[in-house]
Amino acid sequence: MHEISHRVGIKTSVDKIYQALTTNEGLTKWWTNDISGAGDVDSIIKFRFNGGGPDFKVIELLPNKTVRWQHSGNMPEAWVGTEISFQLHVDGEQTFVRFTHGNWQESSDFMAHCSTKWAVFLLSLKDAMETNQGRPFPNDIPIDHS
Amino acid sequence: MHEISHRVGIKTSVDKIYQALTTNEGLTKWWTNDISGAGDVDSIIKFRFNGGGPDFKVIELLPNKTVRWQHSGNMPEAWVGTEISFQLHVDGEQTFVRFTHGNWQESSDFMAHCSTKWAVFLLSLKDAMETNQGRPFPNDIPIDHS
Repeated sequence: MHEISHRVGIKTSVDKIYQALTTNEGLTKWWTNDISGAGDVDSIIKFRFNGGGPDFKVIELLPNKTVRWQHSGNMPEAWVGTEISFQLHVDGEQTFVRFTHGNWQESSDFMAHCSTKWAVFLLSLKDAMETNQGRPFPNDIPIDHS
Repeated sequence: MHEISHRVGIKTSVDKIYQALTTNEGLTKWWTNDISGAGDVDSIIKFRFNGGGPDFKVIELLPNKTVRWQHSGNMPEAWVGTEISFQLHVDGEQTFVRFTHGNWQESSDFMAHCSTKWAVFLLSLKDAMETNQGRPFPNDIPIDHS
């Protein structure tokens, strides 16, 4: 199994970040502008990019500490069986977000693409929290010309 | 063992990217402004950030295809034994750069930090190639407040 991991430090309250990871309104500030279904454990969140995109089931919520999702449905196919987690850790004036997208079957070009793209979205989360200017899809920073 | 991987697509010639990965002048356009020692296989490149930083030995060069480095020396300590590779692949008008930093002993906070930071530097490489405006250290995009 293979794993994508990232870590950013954001100068804002842990509560604000937790809201940005657990509500439709918060998630649309940094990942994609089309999100529905966010809620308690067992909710299925639908992230859409021009109509298509992945579903994730919320499998663990520890307020201001941990958010875990499990891939649900069949799209994109390489994401089937993968899990995402966000671990929050306050350190002085900033809150660190440790992100993992794990359980990949293979270390493919697509996984490498997603790794870079996740970095872009985590920096979008940082900007959304610190300057109110996130770059959710379709305003995300392009990483190629596909 | 654990691995960081990324992939960006850059609209420029593969030759220009290969130069940016194999010469002091090219490397200073996107990673750090203080680089010396780049050259043929067995060269030891010294990447410096405010005086400190890693050394890498060039272990493989396939022109316009592959660049591989092996960590040399002792800093940062967690990088000892790790390897970096850049695989170049032309696809129409763009050249894809598949990056890996492998052979990590553990999936730590520091590895997650480096994963995000590598994404920032690969986007800097993309900008340096496409717009001549890379963001090498100390002008790199901050990912935390440390």
